[in-house]
Amino acid sequence: MTAAALPQVLDRIDADLDASLERLFAFLRIASVSTDPAYAAHCREAAEFLARDLATIGFESAVRPTPGHPVVVANGAAAAGPSVLFYGHYDVQPVDPLDLWETPPFEPRLAVRDGRKVIHGRGACDDKGQLMTFVEACRAWKAVTGSLPLPVTMMIEGEEECGSVNLYAFVKENADEFRRDLALVCDTGMWDRATPAVTTSLRGLVYEEVRVRCADRDLHSGLFGGAAANPIRVLARIIADLHDADGRVTVPGFYDGVHELPADIKADLDALNLKPEDFLGGVGLRVPAGEKGRSLIEQISTRPTCDANGITGGYTGEGAKTVIASEASAKISFRLVGDQDPDKIREAFRAFVRARLPADASVSFTNFGSSPALQLPYDNPWLVKAREALGAEWGRKAVTIGSGGSIPIVGDFKRVLGMDSLMVGFGLDDDRVHSPNEKYDLASFHHGIRSWARIIAALAS
Amino acid sequence: MTAAALPQVLDRIDADLDASLERLFAFLRIASVSTDPAYAAHCREAAEFLARDLATIGFESAVRPTPGHPVVVANGAAAAGPSVLFYGHYDVQPVDPLDLWETPPFEPRLAVRDGRKVIHGRGACDDKGQLMTFVEACRAWKAVTGSLPLPVTMMIEGEEECGSVNLYAFVKENADEFRRDLALVCDTGMWDRATPAVTTSLRGLVYEEVRVRCADRDLHSGLFGGAAANPIRVLARIIADLHDADGRVTVPGFYDGVHELPADIKADLDALNLKPEDFLGGVGLRVPAGEKGRSLIEQISTRPTCDANGITGGYTGEGAKTVIASEASAKISFRLVGDQDPDKIREAFRAFVRARLPADASVSFTNFGSSPALQLPYDNPWLVKAREALGAEWGRKAVTIGSGGSIPIVGDFKRVLGMDSLMVGFGLDDDRVHSPNEKYDLASFHHGIRSWARIIAALAS
Repeated sequence: MTAAALPQVLDRIDADLDASLERLFAFLRIASVSTDPAYAAHCREAAEFLARDLATIGFESAVRPTPGHPVVVANGAAAAGPSVLFYGHYDVQPVDPLDLWETPPFEPRLAVRDGRKVIHGRGACDDKGQLMTFVEACRAWKAVTGSLPLPVTMMIEGEEECGSVNLYAFVKENADEFRRDLALVCDTGMWDRATPAVTTSLRGLVYEEVRVRCADRDLHSGLFGGAAANPIRVLARIIADLHDADGRVTVPGFYDGVHELPADIKADLDALNLKPEDFLGGVGLRVPAGEKGRSLIEQISTRPTCDANGITGGYTGEGAKTVIASEASAKISFRLVGDQDPDKIREAFRAFVRARLPADASVSFTNFGSSPALQLPYDNPWLVKAREALGAEWGRKAVTIGSGGSIPIVGDFKRVLGMDSLMVGFGLDDDRVHSPNEKYDLASFHHGIRSWARIIAALAS
Repeated sequence: MTAAALPQVLDRIDADLDASLERLFAFLRIASVSTDPAYAAHCREAAEFLARDLATIGFESAVRPTPGHPVVVANGAAAAGPSVLFYGHYDVQPVDPLDLWETPPFEPRLAVRDGRKVIHGRGACDDKGQLMTFVEACRAWKAVTGSLPLPVTMMIEGEEECGSVNLYAFVKENADEFRRDLALVCDTGMWDRATPAVTTSLRGLVYEEVRVRCADRDLHSGLFGGAAANPIRVLARIIADLHDADGRVTVPGFYDGVHELPADIKADLDALNLKPEDFLGGVGLRVPAGEKGRSLIEQISTRPTCDANGITGGYTGEGAKTVIASEASAKISFRLVGDQDPDKIREAFRAFVRARLPADASVSFTNFGSSPALQLPYDNPWLVKAREALGAEWGRKAVTIGSGGSIPIVGDFKRVLGMDSLMVGFGLDDDRVHSPNEKYDLASFHHGIRSWARIIAALAS
C-alpha cells in the first residue's frame, strides 16, 4: 500500500505547500537563540510549538527537560517497517551583526535572490527549514494514508548551536527510546542545486594543544638572543615538519587505516568535476593546497589532513618588543578518515613533537578532541534505497559525499546506540547559515519534503 | 698637575663617601617614574634637584624643556683637555608590583644582601646611582683642584625608561652644544663583581613584522582543511627555514660584514670562561642554543642572531576551534654586529620570505627598527686609556664586552654628532634593574666614583 500511495502523497505535498510555508514561518518567528540565556524562553517556546505541531499529526510528543534547553521527543506509530530516529534541532545561531540583515531575522519572508525564490530568515535552513521538510513529509503521509510508512521517533534538540552539551547524557540515559534501526539526520547539504547528496562519511578529529616551554621567564632578546632556546622557533620547526613537500602528513603511521575509494565511487566524485575556482574562489583562494596527486574533492572529503588552527607566543601587540618568550603554544588538528585510530595518531603526534625538542625545551599537551571517522558503507542497503529515492525526485543520481566537519551526534548514535545514520539534507553552499541573511531555497524546502516522502516509503518497502 | 692630584682626589672620595651616599639617597627619594603622567611633577623635581646639585660644584646648569620630561644640561669648564659629553638619565622604571618590595622603593637604605653592602631602592643602579658616580667624581676633582681635568658637558634626560622619544630631536636641534670629542655613558655593567668592563660594541637591530594572508576570511577547517592554504603553516615554514642545522641564519648575505674578533680580544673573552650554568642557569636553561662552534660569550655579544619575538594566528583562546585562519603574523628580529647593513638585511629577509610563499599566500611587512651595530675600535686611544684607568682601580684588567641590546642614544651620538661613546658602568647582573628590590652594590658606587676620577684624569693626560 505504501508504494501505491506515494503519488497521492506527493500531490498532497504540492497542494499543501503554502500551508507548509505558513507553519515554517510561524516556527521561524520564534527567536530560539540557544547560546544567549536571554532567549531561553524563546527556546522553550520553539520546543513547545514543535511538540504541539507534531501532536496534531498523531505523534505522541513531549518537551523533555535537560540541564539546558529541552529536547522534543515524539513517537509516531506505524504497523510495520524498519524503525527510524529522526534528529534535528530547533535552536538557531545568534543574529549579530544585526545591521547586516536586509530584513529582520525573525520576520521570515519569501524573497527572490539570484532569480530563485528563497525563504529568508534566521533558521530558514539551519535547521528549522531542514527539519520541517521531514515533519511535512510525515504530515502528508498521515493525511493521505492515515498513518506513517514506518515507525518514526523524533529527537529535536535545542542546543546544537552551543555544542549539544547535554545531548550525549540525554541519549545515553534514554538509550532504549532512541535505539532504532536507523537514524535520519537532516542537517547537511546537496552537492549543488541540481544534485542531491547523501553524506556518507564524516571525518574524525584529533585536536591537540601543544605548549613548548624553554626559559622559566621571558628574556630580553638583546641580552639572551643567540644563547637561549626560543619556543616559537621550536614550534615553527615542528609545524613545518608536519608536512612533506607533497603535502602529506609526516607523522609516522598517520596513513594507517586510510583506504582508497572504490572505483565506482571515485568515478562518481570525479564526475562532479569540482573546480578550484568554484570551491576556493569564493574565499579568495585559487590553488588546492593539499596532497599532491589528489583531486580537490578528495582533499576536502576523503583524505585525512593536518592543520595548525592557532598559534601564539611572545609579544603580539602593536609595535616591537625584543623578547624571547618563555613559552609558545599551538593548536594542531588532524581530520581523520576510514579506520585511522585517533588514539594511535595522538600518541604518534606527541612522540613526533618530543623527538623535535632541542635541549632546554619541554612540552605539554592538552587534548581537545579525539574521534574516529564515520563511514557508512557504500553498499549499505538503506543508503542504496535513499539514493534511489533522491534520484527519482531530483532527476539526477544522488552522490555520496564526505563531510570534512563533524556532526557529533552521529558519532554518539554510532558509539552509544550502535546505530548508523543516513544524512540527507537540502542546504546549499550559498545559504549563509550562521551569517546574516540566512536563506533556504523554496525548491530545497519543497523538494526536500517530497524527497523525505519518497525516502521513508523506500525504507519501508 | 692632573695626574699628580689623583691620589688626593681618591682620598677625598673615600672620605666623602657618606656624604655622597646622602646626596644619592636624596635623589633616590624623588619618585621620577617617567612612563606614568601622574609622576610628571616628580620627574621635574628630580631634574631640578640635579641641576641645583651640579650648580654647587661650578657647573652652569639648566633644566631644559622638551615636549616630554625636561633634560638637564650642564657645562663644567676646564682650561684644557679633550671635551666630553656625559650622558645619563634621571628617570626610573615603575615600581609594580609594589608588594614584592622588601621596603618601599623610594625610601632608599643601605642593606646587606648576600654578604655585600648594597644600596636598596628604585633607581639605585638604573640610572641614578650610576650617573652619580660620575657627578661625585667631578665633585672630588673640583674640591681638590678647584677645577675639572677636562671640559665636561652633561646631558641627563628624563625619558630613557619610556623610549627617549624626544631626545633625538633635542640632540639634533642642539647639536653644537653636545658635539664633543667623546661621549661617556654610564648605563652599562661590569663583567662581574671583580672585573671592570668597557662596553665597546652594541648589536644593531632589524625588526620586522611579517603578516601572511591566505583566504579572505577565516575558514572552517572541517570544510576547507586539506584544500586551503594555511598562513600559520606558511609562517612556521619560513621561521623554521631561517636557521640551518648549525644554528646559522640562512638569509642570503646575512653574514656579509661580520668580522672575526682580533686574536687578543678573543683570548680575553675566552679567558672570562663564561659558563652556561652561570649565564643560563638563572633562567632555567642549560645549553647555549646559538651557532655551533661559537663560545657562549660570542653567541650573546659578538655574533649576529635572528629570533622570533612573537607570533599569532588563528584561534588562541581556551579550548578548540576548528578554524583555518585567514592570516598569521610574526615579529622577527635580527641582532647585527660589525658592518652588517640593516637595509640590505631587511631586503634580503623580505625576499627570503617572498620566495617561500606558496600559491594563494601574500605577505606584508612592517619595519619596527633598523639600526647598524656600533663598534668602538679595539685600538681607540680613549678606550685604551679608560681600560688602564679601570685596571688600576679594580686591580684586574678591564675587559671589552659587547652588549646584545641596544642603547639608542649611542647610535644617535654616532650618526647625528659623529661622536664615539665610551660606555663604562658598574652595574651587576643581580641588580634587579626594572624589577622589585633594585639595588646597587656599595662597592659599585664607591669604586665607580673612583673609576671615573681616574678615567677623566687619564683622558685628560
